[in-house]
Amino acid sequence: MRKYNLGIDIGGTSIKIGLFSLDNFLLDIWKIPTNKASYGDKILFEIKELIAEKIAINEIRAIGIGVPGPVAKNMVFSCVNLGWGEKDVVKELKEILEDDEIIIKVANDANVAAAGEIYQGVAKGYINAFMVTLGTGIGGGVIIDGKVVDGINGVAGEIGHTHIDDLFNLNCNCGKIGCLETVASATGIVRLAKVYLNNSPLPSPLRRYPDFSAKKVIDYAKDEDPLAMEIFDKAMEYLARVLAKVTYIINPDIFIIGGGVSNAGNFVIERIEQYYYPLVVPFIKKTNFAIATLGNNAGIYGACYLVK
Amino acid sequence: MRKYNLGIDIGGTSIKIGLFSLDNFLLDIWKIPTNKASYGDKILFEIKELIAEKIAINEIRAIGIGVPGPVAKNMVFSCVNLGWGEKDVVKELKEILEDDEIIIKVANDANVAAAGEIYQGVAKGYINAFMVTLGTGIGGGVIIDGKVVDGINGVAGEIGHTHIDDLFNLNCNCGKIGCLETVASATGIVRLAKVYLNNSPLPSPLRRYPDFSAKKVIDYAKDEDPLAMEIFDKAMEYLARVLAKVTYIINPDIFIIGGGVSNAGNFVIERIEQYYYPLVVPFIKKTNFAIATLGNNAGIYGACYLVK
Repeated sequence: MRKYNLGIDIGGTSIKIGLFSLDNFLLDIWKIPTNKASYGDKILFEIKELIAEKIAINEIRAIGIGVPGPVAKNMVFSCVNLGWGEKDVVKELKEILEDDEIIIKVANDANVAAAGEIYQGVAKGYINAFMVTLGTGIGGGVIIDGKVVDGINGVAGEIGHTHIDDLFNLNCNCGKIGCLETVASATGIVRLAKVYLNNSPLPSPLRRYPDFSAKKVIDYAKDEDPLAMEIFDKAMEYLARVLAKVTYIINPDIFIIGGGVSNAGNFVIERIEQYYYPLVVPFIKKTNFAIATLGNNAGIYGACYLVK
Repeated sequence: MRKYNLGIDIGGTSIKIGLFSLDNFLLDIWKIPTNKASYGDKILFEIKELIAEKIAINEIRAIGIGVPGPVAKNMVFSCVNLGWGEKDVVKELKEILEDDEIIIKVANDANVAAAGEIYQGVAKGYINAFMVTLGTGIGGGVIIDGKVVDGINGVAGEIGHTHIDDLFNLNCNCGKIGCLETVASATGIVRLAKVYLNNSPLPSPLRRYPDFSAKKVIDYAKDEDPLAMEIFDKAMEYLARVLAKVTYIINPDIFIIGGGVSNAGNFVIERIEQYYYPLVVPFIKKTNFAIATLGNNAGIYGACYLVK
């Protein structure tokens, strides 16, 4: 009777649901826009409707959920992008589904993405991993001994908000200044580029555009434009410094690089490695860095992993 | 027949053996100086002799061992202070004891100390902890979900060798410059003090001594000598910066502060907190910081915890 697991990725823009067999084979994917009205109060109801259109609720064995905010022990502290404050998603969803027997687990989306990559992605087979997602912001996910590490305040993996140095001091969404995210996320690379363009006499094709993306900076860096190289190198130097600290704290089997910036492939890994190795003890001759492979589906695979 | 567990702490100066009942009650402690002759080849033999003087080898159920060097999956990579290179301690000790059935596990001493503190010390009952030992060097131990985290290269927890900033650039034993250990260990605090004394016009009672200990710096800081306060604050600021990064990577339930410097008690925690809180997200209103309570016995308790 209970023959499905669901992996649900609740994002600020859309909600994606993966339908899995009990042996965790992906059968179907559905997607709806996130309804943020009334402080996100409709989200769980719309998830129920979407599920009920396809399968019977009592056919569900378990539901794993990734959400964009801090989570500890299945309790959501807040999801600014959804309008949620502290929320007991497990309890609420069980009530909405009117089924107390469904196993429900919730974790932070970056941690869930890391779980997805060790489950079905590039880090398959590894049990200790650190994933960094270089997108609009910087997310980080930690897997130790095959389990997602939340942290007591739900901030495990949140390296985007580690303070770097006082060189750029850009304002971060979190209210602080000088967070890694302000210089090394996709948005941060653009911000860093604008600082460089304002302060450097060097010519650069980037000067042709009033506005440009991180991809543009990386493409010109690949083409060996000196200023674009300097900008992207600086961003990856900061990231490498933080990843070296990750090594000295959990020394993971593998670092997984995801998010939009990771589309630049091995070029990203090479830039990170250049700054990373001088910062770690010489006997660490080889650290596994790998580009994430599941893209936007990491969330549903990882959410399924939570309850497999 | 097999009625004991042993917790062994192998240090550069002495080897301490704790004899535990099977329900892990500490029955006895023995200690011998570490014989480092012949690249430490005699150490495991002398451990056998010491054990055999007290109990029969076939009365031992399990042995946990802490060693001063990187260890991963029970394989020692190196212990410079013992003269050891890569060493399969589990295999060698089983051969020396002529008993293949004894369970033997090995981990890094700082990780083992952290295990000791969650097992029988100040962090009893916690399952996620980060311990920092401020002694001659800086050691760090990581416990996640009740298990010691080694790391693939055995460097998990080794925050003493994270690079801080370029302000002091003191040489570290590890061959690099600017490691946290060079300014925030007991030895580091003295080094930092000497830099301050050389570069500051401020008077200080520290100037009375050609040589002094970290304790002296801390005692004068407690007495509100401005220069001593500035020195100790700077050391704790650097430590706090790294602990804030630990929060953003594993967000432990508790930070345990051990080693000689921790004898200064809550004064140390207050100095750390002053610099730590501004570096973490505002909703982390309270982080548990606690002074270690097991002192030099953390090693034997933690070693026993490995095999309990």
